[in-house]
Amino acid sequence: MEKHGADIFTAAQISGIDENNIIDFSSNINPLGIPARVEKAIMGSVKYSDRYPDIHYRGLIEGISLYENVPASYIFPSNGAAEGIFRIALCLKPDYALLTAPTFSEYESALETVDCSIKYYNLNENENFKITSGIFYEINAVDIVFICNPNNPTGQITDNNLLEKIIAQCKLSDKVVVIDECFMDFVEDKEKFSVSHLLKKYDNLIILKAFTKIFAIPGIRLGYCMSSNEKIIDNLKKAGPPWNVSAPAQEAALAAVKEKDYVSQSTEYIKNQRKYLVEEIKKLNINIYDSYANYILFKISDNIDLKEEFLKKGILIRSCANYKNLSDKYYRIAVKREKENELFIEILKEIMVGG
Amino acid sequence: MEKHGADIFTAAQISGIDENNIIDFSSNINPLGIPARVEKAIMGSVKYSDRYPDIHYRGLIEGISLYENVPASYIFPSNGAAEGIFRIALCLKPDYALLTAPTFSEYESALETVDCSIKYYNLNENENFKITSGIFYEINAVDIVFICNPNNPTGQITDNNLLEKIIAQCKLSDKVVVIDECFMDFVEDKEKFSVSHLLKKYDNLIILKAFTKIFAIPGIRLGYCMSSNEKIIDNLKKAGPPWNVSAPAQEAALAAVKEKDYVSQSTEYIKNQRKYLVEEIKKLNINIYDSYANYILFKISDNIDLKEEFLKKGILIRSCANYKNLSDKYYRIAVKREKENELFIEILKEIMVGG
Repeated sequence: MEKHGADIFTAAQISGIDENNIIDFSSNINPLGIPARVEKAIMGSVKYSDRYPDIHYRGLIEGISLYENVPASYIFPSNGAAEGIFRIALCLKPDYALLTAPTFSEYESALETVDCSIKYYNLNENENFKITSGIFYEINAVDIVFICNPNNPTGQITDNNLLEKIIAQCKLSDKVVVIDECFMDFVEDKEKFSVSHLLKKYDNLIILKAFTKIFAIPGIRLGYCMSSNEKIIDNLKKAGPPWNVSAPAQEAALAAVKEKDYVSQSTEYIKNQRKYLVEEIKKLNINIYDSYANYILFKISDNIDLKEEFLKKGILIRSCANYKNLSDKYYRIAVKREKENELFIEILKEIMVGG
Repeated sequence: MEKHGADIFTAAQISGIDENNIIDFSSNINPLGIPARVEKAIMGSVKYSDRYPDIHYRGLIEGISLYENVPASYIFPSNGAAEGIFRIALCLKPDYALLTAPTFSEYESALETVDCSIKYYNLNENENFKITSGIFYEINAVDIVFICNPNNPTGQITDNNLLEKIIAQCKLSDKVVVIDECFMDFVEDKEKFSVSHLLKKYDNLIILKAFTKIFAIPGIRLGYCMSSNEKIIDNLKKAGPPWNVSAPAQEAALAAVKEKDYVSQSTEYIKNQRKYLVEEIKKLNINIYDSYANYILFKISDNIDLKEEFLKKGILIRSCANYKNLSDKYYRIAVKREKENELFIEILKEIMVGG
């Protein structure tokens, strides 16, 4: 069973289609691609690659600090956000954790490395998979809570007020709350939804972020954790190897932090394209759920292996069969470029209603 | 206290010299630099960086398999060898480990993340810091043994026969032996010293390697673990994030595995330059120890802070004050290019005998 999307290499083996010809709707990468200045910075990094990166990441941390408008001391850079998740698990070694179901699978994978028991808070399809105050019944029995916001694979977002209540409640008994905002830069009015302004007030809060998705550099790997808790930042450093962020990743990030306009353009583009996709999918009597992100979750009622059908046409989509609280009727697609989205809808129509 | 060499950024802050003008004798990187075809491959990787690397590293593993002449199933690629060390600690969670003193510091750092107790086998200066059969008295009380071969920072090598005895002895009681061969590609007649031919026979053996040093790509990060033990390889995969090796690292490695001639040229070059350095340092009545690698350990008797003195001249060397069983009288230098080595000797003479 696939654990992640984005595996065009296996898809190529199965379909016989060259991986470079597969249109990948299964990974949630900014469809506008790598900003030109970021690409140039990566190329330029090669001349520094014969020496070790700064073990303290001084320049990189300063750049992220400006981008996020948080103090440099709050930031720990990682080899993609996924490495941050594993380091959090290793340095905190929680006995019990609360995850929503469904959510991103790497929280569970990371927690398993430290033999943590996992409790699941089931999100309700009838509520568009939104977290509600019901979560408070589940918090007391755990040491750590992971909330992906917007959530992957649903695209649903959690209100800022509810999140603050969760963080405050957890603070009372020294529980840590990890809010994964890896897709937050795709959200319109993200200032209303991000909890970064709560970092200073709550030292039990860790925010996870990544440049991977928004700057379309999943091959480069650049994520970071943010917390005002000095001990957590210090322990994150110890919970893995030094020089974890490569020279190309550092140079890419330093160029990326200057690309705020590119981020707003991307958000706008994705908002419009998501609207198009949602409307067209709805016309086919498919259940579709609220999304604030650059991907969409939907559910079909027919007995069709939609992933298989799409792959025949050279398109890879994400089956959600391996997510807890979902099934093989659910699929997730990325919001891509206009032409690709139109092609997707065209093929979906063909499959669902025979063209 | 510095934990590693290679920190030209801190050295720049202290000395006021621009980091690009510091000659770094503190990191053990191939002085011949990045092979041209590897550099080209890194540049070419940028066009693939907008997609996730192959989560199964099919091409990369096949390339390493050919380079090492071991089955592909033995190989786990990592984000530099250091990540491999942390994954080994996390997936095996040993209670007691044996390390030589001195040795590379990351074994200890990694073992501490899983609360492992560490025993030290002190290497004897009078025996050129060589491992002897005395190590057998120490093995019984531990679950895992780490041996760096050639050892960092001494450059000393362990006989293949002794290593096989250690591995065989450990096998009797299911102990794992990790042999770190990150500097083995610099060793003349490495076939005589590497234990890679023992992988098939002993499933309690893990070999650590890296392309970082030999192909001069510390900014790119590419290491790997090798073991015939399927369970260990499988657990290494689970003990950290997916996509841990970046697209530039994968492309660099695929080009590097074809550079066997470059490796032999490097070995030859370093052998000659090391000979020059050793002879010149000996003339100054400094204690110097056998080295089979691309770096040299030596000990001064004077009360001089040699690192500080060299930094005044724009040269960074490695103080070994933080190594167990060494002191602030010991220093490690890399074998670099002819001109740089001559400059090093010239300045050393100035400092030690007043020019």
